[in-house]
Amino acid sequence: MKIAVLGGTGHLGIGLAIRFAALGHEVIVGSRKLEKAMGKADEYNRILQEFNYKPTIRGLANEDAAKEADISIFTIPWEHAFSTAEALRDVLRGKIVVSPLVPMEKKGKVFLYSQLEEGSAAEKLASILDSRVVSAYQNIPAEKFADISAEFKWDVAVTGDDGEAKKVVIELTNQIDGLRAFDAGPLAVSRMVESITPLLINIMIRNGLKDLGIRFG
Amino acid sequence: MKIAVLGGTGHLGIGLAIRFAALGHEVIVGSRKLEKAMGKADEYNRILQEFNYKPTIRGLANEDAAKEADISIFTIPWEHAFSTAEALRDVLRGKIVVSPLVPMEKKGKVFLYSQLEEGSAAEKLASILDSRVVSAYQNIPAEKFADISAEFKWDVAVTGDDGEAKKVVIELTNQIDGLRAFDAGPLAVSRMVESITPLLINIMIRNGLKDLGIRFG
Repeated sequence: MKIAVLGGTGHLGIGLAIRFAALGHEVIVGSRKLEKAMGKADEYNRILQEFNYKPTIRGLANEDAAKEADISIFTIPWEHAFSTAEALRDVLRGKIVVSPLVPMEKKGKVFLYSQLEEGSAAEKLASILDSRVVSAYQNIPAEKFADISAEFKWDVAVTGDDGEAKKVVIELTNQIDGLRAFDAGPLAVSRMVESITPLLINIMIRNGLKDLGIRFG
Repeated sequence: MKIAVLGGTGHLGIGLAIRFAALGHEVIVGSRKLEKAMGKADEYNRILQEFNYKPTIRGLANEDAAKEADISIFTIPWEHAFSTAEALRDVLRGKIVVSPLVPMEKKGKVFLYSQLEEGSAAEKLASILDSRVVSAYQNIPAEKFADISAEFKWDVAVTGDDGEAKKVVIELTNQIDGLRAFDAGPLAVSRMVESITPLLINIMIRNGLKDLGIRFG
């Protein structure tokens, strides 16, 4: 499958790009600037080679990456994601778009979930795009996930209003060792998943913990 | 410690009452009607005896239970919890009150978290009471928890604005085999914990699962 990791320069972007490429998917790293995307692709390919995988990742400007891909993952800081979505509306029409976005704010030492008017970041993304938006990956501890040699067992709650698109993302996610994906319902449920992320951060801060994900069981 | 399980006639109430009594705490089951509370206490004591624990649970009307106890747990359906809180305001003044409340609504086949004006059920409870409100136990699969012989490993996110009260609830919770409590911050974080419950229900319904709790890790 052709997967674009848009703005894929954060920890989640690295982790997804490398893992999907290692699984044999065609991964394109997107960035606002082509040079930055190509630089990142080089960097990720070196990691792949180090672990004896083929260095197949390409770098493209976000628009070209989105145009080529079957699935585009918005690994973009949430404050910038919506303007990026507006700019990519045409090239993403009818395609699968994954929202790992979590709108958050910090008050003192406490992280709070920012309730958006649309209900969640995923629903806001869906309201801007004319795409098959699926919400996933919000609760993955990104820094550890970026380390290809890391071992973990985390669950991923996947929501979306397009059942087929959701199924594709669930199957794709289950291919990654250590991740287990669950259908958690329509996009209206995404706010419950997104708000787990600031909860995890608060628990980590208060208890001196790192890399806390969730498991259902 | 003297623990009142108010309206403790649901599955969560049974599970907490029996487990705390088995640990040697003085447990009082509260109900609107004394006879109902006494009947429930008898029922729970029979279970305790069956598992070779002392049948020490007493039944009292909610007001008397709250008056006697150091800690009162609101195991009451959330729709009725706030009027009960108003009636118990005086007897609960200055005491520790635990909110396991989750405001939920069902739309079609989907469970949604009902955002209250106060931000969460725990914050609404705190706004009514003049008590040291701690939020906990929302995500415990209550039916399985009610079975004293059940084995599980679930985490409990505990929030509250009174650090000492929160510490008491965390220590109490950690005494229960299979539960692990975490300080998750102030009461403003409770909404993130409460909204995990409808998420778990949606995942169970969609995936044919039962008794799904959460683990952080």
